[in-house]
Amino acid sequence: MSEKTIYNFCAGPAALPKPAIEQAQKELLSYKGIGMSVMEISHRSKWADEIIGEAEDNIRTLLNVPDNYHVLFLQGGASLQFSMIPMNFLQGTGKPADYIHTGSWANKAIAEAKKEGEVSIVWNGKDENFVRTPAQSELKLDPNAAYVHFTSNETIQGVEYFEEPETGNVPLMCDASSDFLSRPIPVEKYGLIYAGAQKNIGPAGVTAVIIRDDLLERVPEGLPSLLDYKNMADNKSLYNTPPMFAIYMVMLTTRWVRNDIGGLKAMETVNRKKADLLYEAIDNSNGFYRGHAKPECRSRMNVTWRLPSEDLEKQFIAEAEQEGFLQLKGHRSVGGLRASIYNAMPVEGCEALRGFMAEFQKKNA
Amino acid sequence: MSEKTIYNFCAGPAALPKPAIEQAQKELLSYKGIGMSVMEISHRSKWADEIIGEAEDNIRTLLNVPDNYHVLFLQGGASLQFSMIPMNFLQGTGKPADYIHTGSWANKAIAEAKKEGEVSIVWNGKDENFVRTPAQSELKLDPNAAYVHFTSNETIQGVEYFEEPETGNVPLMCDASSDFLSRPIPVEKYGLIYAGAQKNIGPAGVTAVIIRDDLLERVPEGLPSLLDYKNMADNKSLYNTPPMFAIYMVMLTTRWVRNDIGGLKAMETVNRKKADLLYEAIDNSNGFYRGHAKPECRSRMNVTWRLPSEDLEKQFIAEAEQEGFLQLKGHRSVGGLRASIYNAMPVEGCEALRGFMAEFQKKNA
Repeated sequence: MSEKTIYNFCAGPAALPKPAIEQAQKELLSYKGIGMSVMEISHRSKWADEIIGEAEDNIRTLLNVPDNYHVLFLQGGASLQFSMIPMNFLQGTGKPADYIHTGSWANKAIAEAKKEGEVSIVWNGKDENFVRTPAQSELKLDPNAAYVHFTSNETIQGVEYFEEPETGNVPLMCDASSDFLSRPIPVEKYGLIYAGAQKNIGPAGVTAVIIRDDLLERVPEGLPSLLDYKNMADNKSLYNTPPMFAIYMVMLTTRWVRNDIGGLKAMETVNRKKADLLYEAIDNSNGFYRGHAKPECRSRMNVTWRLPSEDLEKQFIAEAEQEGFLQLKGHRSVGGLRASIYNAMPVEGCEALRGFMAEFQKKNA
Repeated sequence: MSEKTIYNFCAGPAALPKPAIEQAQKELLSYKGIGMSVMEISHRSKWADEIIGEAEDNIRTLLNVPDNYHVLFLQGGASLQFSMIPMNFLQGTGKPADYIHTGSWANKAIAEAKKEGEVSIVWNGKDENFVRTPAQSELKLDPNAAYVHFTSNETIQGVEYFEEPETGNVPLMCDASSDFLSRPIPVEKYGLIYAGAQKNIGPAGVTAVIIRDDLLERVPEGLPSLLDYKNMADNKSLYNTPPMFAIYMVMLTTRWVRNDIGGLKAMETVNRKKADLLYEAIDNSNGFYRGHAKPECRSRMNVTWRLPSEDLEKQFIAEAEQEGFLQLKGHRSVGGLRASIYNAMPVEGCEALRGFMAEFQKKNA
């Protein structure tokens, strides 16, 4: 057994709040003393209602979700949402869908949408190597588009949106997988927000979807039942057996944000502090560390940076691992280092990594 | 905390082997002492490889899966397979697909297939109230069909197949959700076998799919990536983040069948014994208990039966619950009682229920 403190900087699946896992461990064999595990209860039971109900209530309360929005728990990750959105809202409309191309995840959403209908790339960050999000004035939006899609945080490039694109009456769809519940957002600006759980709100295997009422009326007939937002909303996520244990972990994780952290404003303060610690270390390194993203678009969830050489990067990763700083290797498409510091990463993790960065620089600059 | 022994007869999600949950509990905070939970590790890590690898190997070994078959772990339950099969193998072929209609789950598979192409119902048990599976001679199979689909066990009616339909060169597709790994089956007779995990092999949130190599060549271009069997097979279930924790529970559950039970022949012996205990209680009750299914088609997974009146059925369920026999209420479409006795139900559970049934009859006949 490892005795030293471990900090898990994995981009996802990522660290979960320790109190959430501890609670799950305590009652893994007998949920609330009923003699059955959460994994063993019927999804039609009162216990399942309670779990799904609290998970939904936590999300509603944390984000101040208006009453005309549904909160759903689906399967298939963000990747299935990439297809569900155009299947439900693009195909057959005769309209194009506007996609903002900010990096690797936007690219995947675009590829799936193109299979279902006409896609218009209204801004493309590729020529600049995806170092920033666009200004509103740069977006070539079509007022007749079926919807506008954007990716609020690009985990691979480490680029984050801090203000929603303005889309007028065109519904705004957002892949918020990697910064969902990391800070308050104005839900009323969105038509649909989706988030694979495995960054900020739970384990892999469940996707949170917040969808505005009126969009459900646009869902065409004849979609596969499991890919039909209206069917899933009408059945309150219980059309088929939902991934109960993953939803239970979402319940525990959102309870932690709500009660232990004190809500999304407090969560944002913590997340800002963590990100600042690392970006300051980069900025104060006299060029030894070089951040990938433009300062004003720097992600508070995924800090990406390079060292003077690939050899030094390898050495950094190896030595960091020895010290308990795990999974810091950047994605191969960007290279370098990446520290993913989602909600569950404690401030001490970033302080410790910052200390390690300073030490490493001193020895190797 | 409850002190008495609990027997969970839920139709699914269902009881899991206690040693599997205990192992998960022990290492929930730190898998193999690495300082991270299974829920927190990257799906690109060696630990994830190890877990997915063992889960696959256990299934391959238990079922003696030939080398020309892939074993996949997907999301969306059997319900998404209802759509994926016709999306991959029916639409665009110009052929019909043959469906055998044995009950509620076959019906759902048929409804989704009809959205994607032409469906031919080659046998329909509805007029007999779904009390049996068909004989081979009753099937009106089309030698040019895209495939034949059947449901090996109907959980709601309690009707099970014990011999596969013969389909010649037409690929045989099977929803084996509720009797998967409950006994040996000749995999080489199948084109595709799928099973939502939450009955016999794990928690809700993962679906095992066994698919023959040559079928992958039939997958059309342009399907949503997550619904494309070829894409999922080419990426060995790692196209996107898989539901790691659910797969880990499949690993532990199949390890239990393999090592603790001793394989599928031994599992079948246990399952037969359990079912016999309950069916004998029904048959020896002088008509107080009446089984739903025809004796030769009685499911070994879901025992369904009626009492002389609905009032007595309610009373039975209430008194049984007091004694720790949980979730015995039959599905509303069939009524009466249902005891789901999947792999993880111990023989003692069925012995105890049989005892309760005898007592109840003595008091109320």
